[in-house]
Amino acid sequence: MDRSRLEAFSDGVFAVAITLLALNLTVEGPGHGHLQHQLWGHRWSFAAYLISFFVIGIIWVNHHVLIRSVARVDRTLLFVNLVLLLFVVLIPFSTATAAQYLPVRNEDANVAMVLYSAVFLGMSVGFGSIFEWTLHDDHRIVPLPPQAHWPARLRFAGGSSVYVVSMIVALFSAYAAFALIALVAVYYIFERTPSAPDSGDDEEPVV
Amino acid sequence: MDRSRLEAFSDGVFAVAITLLALNLTVEGPGHGHLQHQLWGHRWSFAAYLISFFVIGIIWVNHHVLIRSVARVDRTLLFVNLVLLLFVVLIPFSTATAAQYLPVRNEDANVAMVLYSAVFLGMSVGFGSIFEWTLHDDHRIVPLPPQAHWPARLRFAGGSSVYVVSMIVALFSAYAAFALIALVAVYYIFERTPSAPDSGDDEEPVV
Amino acid sequence: MDRSRLEAFSDGVFAVAITLLALNLTVEGPGHGHLQHQLWGHRWSFAAYLISFFVIGIIWVNHHVLIRSVARVDRTLLFVNLVLLLFVVLIPFSTATAAQYLPVRNEDANVAMVLYSAVFLGMSVGFGSIFEWTLHDDHRIVPLPPQAHWPARLRFAGGSSVYVVSMIVALFSAYAAFALIALVAVYYIFERTPSAPDSGDDEEPVV
Amino acid sequence: MDRSRLEAFSDGVFAVAITLLALNLTVEGPGHGHLQHQLWGHRWSFAAYLISFFVIGIIWVNHHVLIRSVARVDRTLLFVNLVLLLFVVLIPFSTATAAQYLPVRNEDANVAMVLYSAVFLGMSVGFGSIFEWTLHDDHRIVPLPPQAHWPARLRFAGGSSVYVVSMIVALFSAYAAFALIALVAVYYIFERTPSAPDSGDDEEPVV
Repeated sequence: MDRSRLEAFSDGVFAVAITLLALNLTVEGPGHGHLQHQLWGHRWSFAAYLISFFVIGIIWVNHHVLIRSVARVDRTLLFVNLVLLLFVVLIPFSTATAAQYLPVRNEDANVAMVLYSAVFLGMSVGFGSIFEWTLHDDHRIVPLPPQAHWPARLRFAGGSSVYVVSMIVALFSAYAAFALIALVAVYYIFERTPSAPDSGDDEEPVV
Repeated sequence: MDRSRLEAFSDGVFAVAITLLALNLTVEGPGHGHLQHQLWGHRWSFAAYLISFFVIGIIWVNHHVLIRSVARVDRTLLFVNLVLLLFVVLIPFSTATAAQYLPVRNEDANVAMVLYSAVFLGMSVGFGSIFEWTLHDDHRIVPLPPQAHWPARLRFAGGSSVYVVSMIVALFSAYAAFALIALVAVYYIFERTPSAPDSGDDEEPVV
Repeated sequence: MDRSRLEAFSDGVFAVAITLLALNLTVEGPGHGHLQHQLWGHRWSFAAYLISFFVIGIIWVNHHVLIRSVARVDRTLLFVNLVLLLFVVLIPFSTATAAQYLPVRNEDANVAMVLYSAVFLGMSVGFGSIFEWTLHDDHRIVPLPPQAHWPARLRFAGGSSVYVVSMIVALFSAYAAFALIALVAVYYIFERTPSAPDSGDDEEPVV
Repeated sequence: MDRSRLEAFSDGVFAVAITLLALNLTVEGPGHGHLQHQLWGHRWSFAAYLISFFVIGIIWVNHHVLIRSVARVDRTLLFVNLVLLLFVVLIPFSTATAAQYLPVRNEDANVAMVLYSAVFLGMSVGFGSIFEWTLHDDHRIVPLPPQAHWPARLRFAGGSSVYVVSMIVALFSAYAAFALIALVAVYYIFERTPSAPDSGDDEEPVV
């Protein structure tokens, strides 16, 4: 029944991962061209930073809501949560790789975006696994009625399937895949459930 | 009503960002000149570290006080808080850039200080947005009387406007902009509200 | 009786260490060969990341369970806990070294795996020392009966002895040592105590 | 009266700083000499890591005990605490510098150890300032009797004065200064107050 350390550890990992994203942002020292040109040359790094920051932010918000619905913590949950964090921790790496290779406009850009999408997919599947765990036994404080399980899973599959689609799209166009992930992040930031605007306990899986 | 994870995650990001500031402080190994000359050559890095450390510290103190006044946490607050953190996380990058380019005394120094000011402005606007959110509906534990809204907003605009001014000043003198930001940080550290010296619940927007 | 800061600090160190693991994952920028070849060339880095991530995760889960059984925190516990953390913090370093030297297939690979095993051994001994501390005086909320002390210690010795064995194996085959550590990690992830599946208070020393 | 976020933020900074220490530990990739020679060549890095790790650990333990005695948190405490953290965050930098320059055995080694001592002195003075703050007004839950103030301050001055001495010693012998700091760290780790062995509320300033 002790959720506090699960939350503390997860929050720590989310916080470090989201802050390490910005370590990829660097400029060369004086003598490597005008600073504004350098900054403009890093525009893909800034864009990738922005998208990854909000994707981690969204998954953190959803993790927050989902774990609050959990009645008690067991070893299975701790390890499924570790799988989620395994992919969260990879995001600074996949973001840096995407930022480096997006501008080259060759097949390496496609590979970089497949990797970028794949890490988000892993994160999404990890989050979906936590949600699946909550549906079983008496893991939730307030059990979800059985007829709500499949609609909820489909919404999750919808979240994960965006990243499957972006992996496939990335094979053909790295930029289209990047735009798709960016659009989905923007959608989830502004998506509000009108029926429960400020209740704070809307537990919808949004990634 | 659960502020604890919002606070835990924000504290984590503040703590990592403030510690990463010091990653910019490095010296070359033996064979790159006397150590004391190297340290002196990094004096702008130390100055920028000092200023950025206290700016993050001040915003953390204010965040602490502001969130404590919040009656309940909703999705909007979580995402507005993410916008604040987005800029906090950029501070090590803008600080490193300022430290690298301030000594060159050409237009790149101006660009670096515009960037440095702009990141602080973004942080200040993010903080102001959280404050604005607290004024609406029943978001505060103790509502602020309506006639106090505009004075409070003006104090906030005062905080943000310092960074707007320093962005403009930076176009003409990088050093003057740096001095302005430093003075404001020093002012806020020593500024005390005499009427409520130790109450700890003075919620004035100081950045 | 105040375990909260011990847990908060430890969770912070675990979270930062587990996230820094991924800092070792980098690719060269464009112009250094096809990205998929680079990624394939880093396969040992990914494998080492995966193993170290789960070893830290397992020790965190066990730390979680063990500290929860502690009745009160004293200075001795704080410093023994620091010894554990001393080795946890070294894991990103030993992991990076192993990832760099495993592919060279010469005696340096053996040295790297001795180091990798030794850091895990230090962590395991640190954890065992905390467990030993809990057996004495009235350090546990629910004291373990004296006849259960030696079986428990033997299980711990079993955990630590795996790393002693892998240190010796590493002298002859770096890959065999790596495989041994990986197998043990997988075993502990899937190992469940059937008698108390979801109780969450099974305090067995699993590393 | 809300100490939790002060503790959470401080613990976060301590945890990140103590973990970043190990970032200084790196070896060159294959082709830069035998790994065991490289590791031996980094022996000063390991020694400096070890000392700095325990100095941060000791100050964290003392911070833990001191803050627990505080009746309520005000702005002054928050900013004095920031001064402490300002120096804690510098420790990975001063440790890396000491590790790089200790082996060169020239005047740069002396400068490096002056810097190393100075950062610890700043940390110690910051901690002493928090202690001084607790002596005034009704800042402590259980006030210290006035006749105990000066003995307590002297013990603090004793802590800080070690670092003043090591700064002076460093001018003549970097190694002697390093040994002095190491001895003091070892002393404080094993120093126990016999009269209150496990009480956990011995609030002696040990650094």
